[in-house]
Amino acid sequence: MYQFKKHVAVISSGAVAGKLESEGPLKSYFDIISNDSKFNMDTWEKAESEMIRISAEIAFKKASIKPNQVDAALFGDLTNQCNATTFGFLEHRIPLLGIYGACSTYALSIGMAGLLLQGHENGMMLCGASSHYSSAERQYRFPLEYGCQRTPTSQTTVTGAGTMLLSNHLNSDIYVREFLPGIIIDAGIHDVNNMGAAMAPAAFDTISKYFKYTNTSPSDFDLILTGDLGFEGYKILCDMLNQEGYLNTRNVQDCGMMIYDREKQAVNAGGSGCGCSATVVSGYIISAMKKGIYQNVLLIGTGALLNATSVLQKEPIPSIAHLVRITKEVFI
Amino acid sequence: MYQFKKHVAVISSGAVAGKLESEGPLKSYFDIISNDSKFNMDTWEKAESEMIRISAEIAFKKASIKPNQVDAALFGDLTNQCNATTFGFLEHRIPLLGIYGACSTYALSIGMAGLLLQGHENGMMLCGASSHYSSAERQYRFPLEYGCQRTPTSQTTVTGAGTMLLSNHLNSDIYVREFLPGIIIDAGIHDVNNMGAAMAPAAFDTISKYFKYTNTSPSDFDLILTGDLGFEGYKILCDMLNQEGYLNTRNVQDCGMMIYDREKQAVNAGGSGCGCSATVVSGYIISAMKKGIYQNVLLIGTGALLNATSVLQKEPIPSIAHLVRITKEVFI
Repeated sequence: MYQFKKHVAVISSGAVAGKLESEGPLKSYFDIISNDSKFNMDTWEKAESEMIRISAEIAFKKASIKPNQVDAALFGDLTNQCNATTFGFLEHRIPLLGIYGACSTYALSIGMAGLLLQGHENGMMLCGASSHYSSAERQYRFPLEYGCQRTPTSQTTVTGAGTMLLSNHLNSDIYVREFLPGIIIDAGIHDVNNMGAAMAPAAFDTISKYFKYTNTSPSDFDLILTGDLGFEGYKILCDMLNQEGYLNTRNVQDCGMMIYDREKQAVNAGGSGCGCSATVVSGYIISAMKKGIYQNVLLIGTGALLNATSVLQKEPIPSIAHLVRITKEVFI
Repeated sequence: MYQFKKHVAVISSGAVAGKLESEGPLKSYFDIISNDSKFNMDTWEKAESEMIRISAEIAFKKASIKPNQVDAALFGDLTNQCNATTFGFLEHRIPLLGIYGACSTYALSIGMAGLLLQGHENGMMLCGASSHYSSAERQYRFPLEYGCQRTPTSQTTVTGAGTMLLSNHLNSDIYVREFLPGIIIDAGIHDVNNMGAAMAPAAFDTISKYFKYTNTSPSDFDLILTGDLGFEGYKILCDMLNQEGYLNTRNVQDCGMMIYDREKQAVNAGGSGCGCSATVVSGYIISAMKKGIYQNVLLIGTGALLNATSVLQKEPIPSIAHLVRITKEVFI
């Protein structure tokens, strides 16, 4: 586990979201929302790149910095070869460190950027992740035109991109403090419509290691936020934590459960996709921390390392979970 | 550009290669070669994961360390969602930082691991990359069963995996010194069978920036090794360097040109794939540096960020090139 000695300040953040997300409970926290799932582009894939481009631009503008002042961007998405990221960074011309961790990508980008910022002076890094319902669903499951019925355990891939600008020399009121990268966990899940069950054991592995390494328990944090187990995976994680003796899981929440209103929106087990935790954290959580609602947050990015070919080959869907701790200044 | 203050020692390396690669001029430098392109597995994808598992194991064994002594692995490959890497690290249970830079992944992993090692004490990281001809070709171009004829500019995806174990506290006779990450460059190439032309401008962008930042020229290095432009891209890069005033490109070589014997092997424009530079460097270059053949090497990983969907959508193939400098101890 990495405890950062040099400060890693969250200078700004940007959140871009699609139509369904802008109809959910967090709509007022997103910087840009669009009723057009193509974001004025001619394909869904280009739309995702456009969301990435805009989400980076928002972070730069909020911090009043130019892209060339940033050392590098750590970014990834769900499209094969992180192709949305490739085209999303064409215009900004920032050195790009491509990363991949499925839906854990956002936490991975924050953790790695924080760690990279330990090693040099006057550093600034952009981190982030994105997903798009329409570019992801047809790639991982079925063409959308089939209109396949989705099972109750299936999650809804969020259309959104989120960024965070981190600096080791500028100050802020929010800081990234620790990073615990996860290992690959195979829970033996084969159902492409139950990512929650695949990811929960990975989340548990990383969270329980963190509590042991730091001699803490769930009640030491205002918020233990997984992103994104959804309603199905959340239940499994809470059960696993209870079995481990962590009986109070009141502070455990999940980005996939927060982004939509399950009662009013047909999202089945909740949100998923790299863009889920990216928009919830870049939009809502950072804003809530600024207001003092949360002081000490664990973000656990959870990724189901789903691949269409290996599923056809009857392989299971392994998962990974990366943890970062984000705090208000008072904890420094 | 990052100049490492803390030393980054190359403790060991591992190279696993397939049949075609083991019939080429570098065969004696690979640690493990296999005449079975499935490496005793039942699919090509599993074979690639097996190569990854073995290549990591070799690096651990050579350095007499156990996987749990390593902080993390930075690894990527060409399969969608870096799926070969996922299964390749299931057994080792090391924290996995997934990265993606197409064929630049190996240089990206070395550069990022070096940079990550600047920020904490007693660190050790495994970096590496892999590719497999059969898992890659059917994913990016056509099913192999079609027996499509390949064009003269097409490169042959290397079946191989290469690793490097880096430490900031143990000593060695070889060190990683600098890292210059690249930006996305779109040269307007649409031909999926001419990755060399797509990548050469990205290589030129990163190399020429490096020479300017460090006030050096090609003759300051024993070897400027791109990986992997192939014969087509190599010619373009040399032309571009000549036009920039760098007339002596004698020291410029390319992993894709070195790994096969073009006269005897039907490889068209040479080798490609993450496994190309990974096996050439982990196998041959490290060995040649130990013998004193090279003292001061620039490795420029070049990646064509090819995606099957965006090609069908008539998009160009952007590229990226990441540079690392590797030296013998005398240069420290």
